[in-house]
Amino acid sequence: MSLIVTGSIGIDTVITPEGKADEVLGGSCTYFAAAASFFCDVRLVAAVGEDFPDSHEAVFKQFKIDTSGLEKRQGSKTFRWTGKYLENMNDRETLEVQPNVLAEALPPVPADFRDSGYVFLANTHPAGQMELRQQFPEAKLVVADTMDLWIDTANEELRGLLKQIDGLVLNDSEAKLLTGRSNHVAAAEAIIDMGPKFVVIKKGEHGCLLLHKEGVVALPAYPAREVHDPTGAGDSYAGGMMGYLAASGDLSLASIKKSLAYGTIVASFNIEAFSLERMKRLSRKEIDDRYAGFADMLRID
Amino acid sequence: MSLIVTGSIGIDTVITPEGKADEVLGGSCTYFAAAASFFCDVRLVAAVGEDFPDSHEAVFKQFKIDTSGLEKRQGSKTFRWTGKYLENMNDRETLEVQPNVLAEALPPVPADFRDSGYVFLANTHPAGQMELRQQFPEAKLVVADTMDLWIDTANEELRGLLKQIDGLVLNDSEAKLLTGRSNHVAAAEAIIDMGPKFVVIKKGEHGCLLLHKEGVVALPAYPAREVHDPTGAGDSYAGGMMGYLAASGDLSLASIKKSLAYGTIVASFNIEAFSLERMKRLSRKEIDDRYAGFADMLRID
Repeated sequence: MSLIVTGSIGIDTVITPEGKADEVLGGSCTYFAAAASFFCDVRLVAAVGEDFPDSHEAVFKQFKIDTSGLEKRQGSKTFRWTGKYLENMNDRETLEVQPNVLAEALPPVPADFRDSGYVFLANTHPAGQMELRQQFPEAKLVVADTMDLWIDTANEELRGLLKQIDGLVLNDSEAKLLTGRSNHVAAAEAIIDMGPKFVVIKKGEHGCLLLHKEGVVALPAYPAREVHDPTGAGDSYAGGMMGYLAASGDLSLASIKKSLAYGTIVASFNIEAFSLERMKRLSRKEIDDRYAGFADMLRID
Repeated sequence: MSLIVTGSIGIDTVITPEGKADEVLGGSCTYFAAAASFFCDVRLVAAVGEDFPDSHEAVFKQFKIDTSGLEKRQGSKTFRWTGKYLENMNDRETLEVQPNVLAEALPPVPADFRDSGYVFLANTHPAGQMELRQQFPEAKLVVADTMDLWIDTANEELRGLLKQIDGLVLNDSEAKLLTGRSNHVAAAEAIIDMGPKFVVIKKGEHGCLLLHKEGVVALPAYPAREVHDPTGAGDSYAGGMMGYLAASGDLSLASIKKSLAYGTIVASFNIEAFSLERMKRLSRKEIDDRYAGFADMLRID
């Protein structure tokens, strides 16, 4: 069944202790869609400006992503982000952000995308996420991401959205901000009380925690030696996760757990190079081989 | 085969957001020995002062720990520590520390303890750890813990010790301090280059990382909802780990991995109450049942 993702496409400039990448392809939607494309058909709804280079657009084709929902808006400019990672490769600072087209109206969802069974609402204003969510009343699974900005400035809209989605994916600091709880299990329980059937707390290099009605699952991150650019780790994680679920069609706890592990593995490749460079030369076999090693590492009985 | 542990026994006063425990039994050796006692015979070498209450001494008997190496030194006072945990239950501040007997000569190792096959050198000055290590030339496995204080003030002695032990257990901030590397895999590699055959980096609520010649293993912490007192989590983790290894006699990577999981499980019980209260009413069956659930949680193939 088709997976649709709505979110940002950006032109990023990234500085890490390893080097610098200028005006490379980025954005939550981009990383998500590329990661999910290893598992299932992916449809994308996003807007870019007239400055968006053809070479960046060609990347979506390379991943066989359906870009009929990609609007190249005349008179607008593409979202731009410049960020710098500190020596630990976990903390980063945003040096410059230009919302540009992201601050304008949402792009329309093509009519033939309405039958998408799996929907990922990547991070944007919760009112926009709600508007998109309502265009997929028959979806089998709707999952959203969010961020500290919306928890602070659009809390009521976010609470409304949480009642209308199946799953929420967010990072640990956001989970604490949303619930006031530092214990991750307690924070996840508080989020479940707000509406979603499950919640995934992403902890970066420390792995993730899933709380679901049927149980709780903690997984470590893949122990990565080479981290060149953490940008898009969380989005490629979510892409691997949703891609696996859309491909399997199985929403049991066991299947969601496997989806988190696939997300973990795809993200572990993504951080090995700037932008989407590693995913561009990644194969499904490499994912499956690393997954098998990860499963073996986690076998303790 | 017998497991011997040398380290501190203390009288702790612990303040957490949940409450306060006054003058309770604590110390690295204490938590370690109690945790290990669920798996194998445990011998203890440590010194306390003449102020050490009989009621605390009775706890060692309850865990069937061999205390013939416990010296109650006349004219000396027991090590005392007062600490306060912050709301997140991870960060803590030491409000008061009285080294007392810990600043004096090491207690002697009883002659009939010399045949101990498994040795754990709990955290103390590396010169003292070396002195103890040399009393067990035939040991099958010698593992040490350390801390930031010794990395800063006794770095040369610590480097010397690392050449004489099989394994090192330390926490993530200590691993970074010792190696200058923030990436945990890179830090572990740098430690292996200093001498030990394997290193275990403890990450508290984020789990642990093992680097061994045959591979790398990352495990999550047990997803605990109820944390009442984190004191001794790292020591009970090491106790469960070494206890399992001494009981199994198997030092393969697969066995060390299982030992980390047993350590994780025992530590997850320990933090459910102040001091050793939860371990006092813990059964091996409870450990095995939670272990089975943990193994099931980590099964992704």
